Amino acid sequence: MRVDELVKTLKATLVLGDPAVEVTGAANLREAGPSDISHFSDARYAPDLQVTKAAAVLLKSVEGVDAPQSTALLQVPDPEVAFIQVLTLLYPAEPEKPGVDPRAVVEPGVDLGEGVYVGPFAVIRKGARVGARAVIHAHAVVGRNCSIGEGTIIHSHAVLYDNAKVGKNVVVHAGTILGADGFGYKFRGGRHVKVPQVGVVDIGDDVEIGANACIDRAALGATRVGSGTKIDNLVQVGHNVSIGKHCILCGQAAIAGSSGMDDYAVLGGNAGIADHVFMGKGSKAGAKSGVGKDVPPGAEVWGMFAEERKIAFRQLASIRRLPELIERVRELEKRLAELEPKK
Amino acid sequence: MRVDELVKTLKATLVLGDPAVEVTGAANLREAGPSDISHFSDARYAPDLQVTKAAAVLLKSVEGVDAPQSTALLQVPDPEVAFIQVLTLLYPAEPEKPGVDPRAVVEPGVDLGEGVYVGPFAVIRKGARVGARAVIHAHAVVGRNCSIGEGTIIHSHAVLYDNAKVGKNVVVHAGTILGADGFGYKFRGGRHVKVPQVGVVDIGDDVEIGANACIDRAALGATRVGSGTKIDNLVQVGHNVSIGKHCILCGQAAIAGSSGMDDYAVLGGNAGIADHVFMGKGSKAGAKSGVGKDVPPGAEVWGMFAEERKIAFRQLASIRRLPELIERVRELEKRLAELEPKK
Amino acid sequence: MRVDELVKTLKATLVLGDPAVEVTGAANLREAGPSDISHFSDARYAPDLQVTKAAAVLLKSVEGVDAPQSTALLQVPDPEVAFIQVLTLLYPAEPEKPGVDPRAVVEPGVDLGEGVYVGPFAVIRKGARVGARAVIHAHAVVGRNCSIGEGTIIHSHAVLYDNAKVGKNVVVHAGTILGADGFGYKFRGGRHVKVPQVGVVDIGDDVEIGANACIDRAALGATRVGSGTKIDNLVQVGHNVSIGKHCILCGQAAIAGSSGMDDYAVLGGNAGIADHVFMGKGSKAGAKSGVGKDVPPGAEVWGMFAEERKIAFRQLASIRRLPELIERVRELEKRLAELEPKK
Repeated sequence: MRVDELVKTLKATLVLGDPAVEVTGAANLREAGPSDISHFSDARYAPDLQVTKAAAVLLKSVEGVDAPQSTALLQVPDPEVAFIQVLTLLYPAEPEKPGVDPRAVVEPGVDLGEGVYVGPFAVIRKGARVGARAVIHAHAVVGRNCSIGEGTIIHSHAVLYDNAKVGKNVVVHAGTILGADGFGYKFRGGRHVKVPQVGVVDIGDDVEIGANACIDRAALGATRVGSGTKIDNLVQVGHNVSIGKHCILCGQAAIAGSSGMDDYAVLGGNAGIADHVFMGKGSKAGAKSGVGKDVPPGAEVWGMFAEERKIAFRQLASIRRLPELIERVRELEKRLAELEPKK
Repeated sequence: MRVDELVKTLKATLVLGDPAVEVTGAANLREAGPSDISHFSDARYAPDLQVTKAAAVLLKSVEGVDAPQSTALLQVPDPEVAFIQVLTLLYPAEPEKPGVDPRAVVEPGVDLGEGVYVGPFAVIRKGARVGARAVIHAHAVVGRNCSIGEGTIIHSHAVLYDNAKVGKNVVVHAGTILGADGFGYKFRGGRHVKVPQVGVVDIGDDVEIGANACIDRAALGATRVGSGTKIDNLVQVGHNVSIGKHCILCGQAAIAGSSGMDDYAVLGGNAGIADHVFMGKGSKAGAKSGVGKDVPPGAEVWGMFAEERKIAFRQLASIRRLPELIERVRELEKRLAELEPKK
Repeated sequence: MRVDELVKTLKATLVLGDPAVEVTGAANLREAGPSDISHFSDARYAPDLQVTKAAAVLLKSVEGVDAPQSTALLQVPDPEVAFIQVLTLLYPAEPEKPGVDPRAVVEPGVDLGEGVYVGPFAVIRKGARVGARAVIHAHAVVGRNCSIGEGTIIHSHAVLYDNAKVGKNVVVHAGTILGADGFGYKFRGGRHVKVPQVGVVDIGDDVEIGANACIDRAALGATRVGSGTKIDNLVQVGHNVSIGKHCILCGQAAIAGSSGMDDYAVLGGNAGIADHVFMGKGSKAGAKSGVGKDVPPGAEVWGMFAEERKIAFRQLASIRRLPELIERVRELEKRLAELEPKK
């Protein structure tokens, strides 16, 4: 793509540089070569901008900016979003050709929308509905009576147990299991008696779920993931959990049964929420936190027994001073004993 | 199902309400509608019972109980267990029709019991024995010389490496890997030399293992999981681990090599046991704990470096007071200096 | 195998015992039976050696050693490595017969080396190159334009997304996902906008990756794992991570985006590295640690907010004394008040 084409597509302003230069790739400022486009969105990367070899750089403003002569500067209102557009243009995902591979199993009574792709060895069981333009990759398993929305992509080796519901434009990455039984037992007569898990999983629209994650079906009712929520690899979501819209669950995060997150809440990497605990709207739990009590809306918490972030970090700072404090107390005891009248 | 039929099946006593009412579903007291049955097993839910719309409620005793007139009350000795029975009646699992799907691979020299189901693309390798009525779902892989007991269910995409042994009435959920190599190396000449992992995995009867879990084969001998033990999603069990009977391992728990749990021990969510460490009978480690030393029978431990629970929580409470304690020590130093004779 | 054959193969010295004894298995000193060989590599196991029933034991020196009369003693310079050799001899892995199973899908334009095995239902997509003697097990998926080196083993249900690169003599265990999208979004207009992940995964030679692990593709460029590095089950490696050579990542460890480990670094079980953080050469993070800041070469760190190990453990010891310290401060306050002049 030529710089002037990019300028036109992105509605950018070419402030400096040659409109005829060819751009064939995208890279960070530091790694970019002379046919790459990059972006400058954070003042911390100013030193990288000074020495970049990029053919072109997207930025918000050229004011006060120091970049090599050879680099075209394209002004856009939001360089990060413009860069996303560029990535989509330069690296278009190779589409699968619609159609059902003859080696797939599509049981009778399945409703496949227009333009659906079903890869080899995929299994779609009776009663399932697959929306238009959905992509069911090789080896994916879609259980009985599942429903999959338009444009949704189910990657290889993902498994949807019976009755799972997945919205539109969702991406479920490889190896992810939706709707396995929740972990529910009653202890009777010296053994754990299984509580049948007869609920479902219900995933909204525009959700992305990483690889090898697990979202269990509800015991009764539904385990819910709201639209726009993004879930990373190896995340565990227990039965009857309710996750709001536009939440973020980082890698290896986990939510125990019947807990929840309101819209826009963020659960850091390997952080966990205990059962029957709720994170309020827009609240955040830091990496590895153990959230054992409700988190108010907007609050940030951290720690193995998560506390308000400011408090947790003050405690952490105090702990660092603890060995010294013990010394000071010992010293005080000595000095005080000297002042006290001898018995 | 009619209420009077349920009364008969559950050997319940209909204390109040219409025996002719139809029950079609089950739900919690709060979510139940006028054709649902529910249960009241915990006094905390008394407010939910007062306003429930359920057609019928299972409870231990109607004494002092406040429930709507329209709700039939069924007295049973154990409402939780009766509710499990009801779930099984109202939501029977749709069985797979016995037989081997023509698209499955069953190598020569496999011994399949009566009434076994083998789904499409399942692979059962030579020398494997599959007990009567076992269900091997689509895409499951059963390695050479594996043995699977009667009535056991192996879900899609589960993999049993060669020589794995699984007992009767076990459920292995989707994506779970039994018998991959343990993580064993010797460091020689600047590199990690693999120790061949030639042992096996040996799972008892009535075990349930969640989705995307991993139980490694032993280096030598066997990694064992005792009968009745329940393991949640994404759990990691290292080589040569020995887990007793009726243990509970919650989501993302982990046990490092050569460690173990005695019968009835409980490992909380994302808790881990270090290598060569043993949890005694009936002991418990709280969520996210790091169990670095043996836990006595019956003890409860908690914390990143797990301590007896009472001690750990006293420490936690002390840490919360630490910033204030530092202030108090500073104040003491000031006051003491004023008392001390000037040098 | 007879003891004298072993002596010859291992270039050992038979110090004591019958060269004609048959050895059919290998076991630890304690579990070994009269036809097993064992090894004595650690003085802590001297009591086990005294009572072993092993037919033969590999050891460095017989000096000061107390073993049963019936046990042959084989002196070797490195008993652990000799024992690895023995394991390889006594338990040879049953090889797969080279060839492509007729039920596999090998798309046109795939380059398969000599002696490759491709199992049933494996899928190898166009443009992929598979080196000589590689083993692609049943159900593995190798994406478009992937490259797999000579002698590499891809186990069942492993998935390589398009363009993944895996070196020679690598083992990828079952269920592991290489090259799923990194977790990258920009928050705009109340929702998370996906940043296309157009980079790749690049795995060196002699790497082993456990079961159900995830290594994400880079946003741009490559996520790298250096030669000789060993990765355990359920490990999460984020986009643009760079792992050096001969590193160790224990079970459930995790590295967030753009972070890294230099050669020979060790990440303990369930330990995590925050984003943009780097562990120096040969450094170590203990189990469950949260590595939030760079670790110098050779350093050992531990803790939820990881500190130098010695400091972390001194803090831990101080915390244990904290409840008592609070008492001592209260006592000091009382004693001091008695000394102070009454106001």
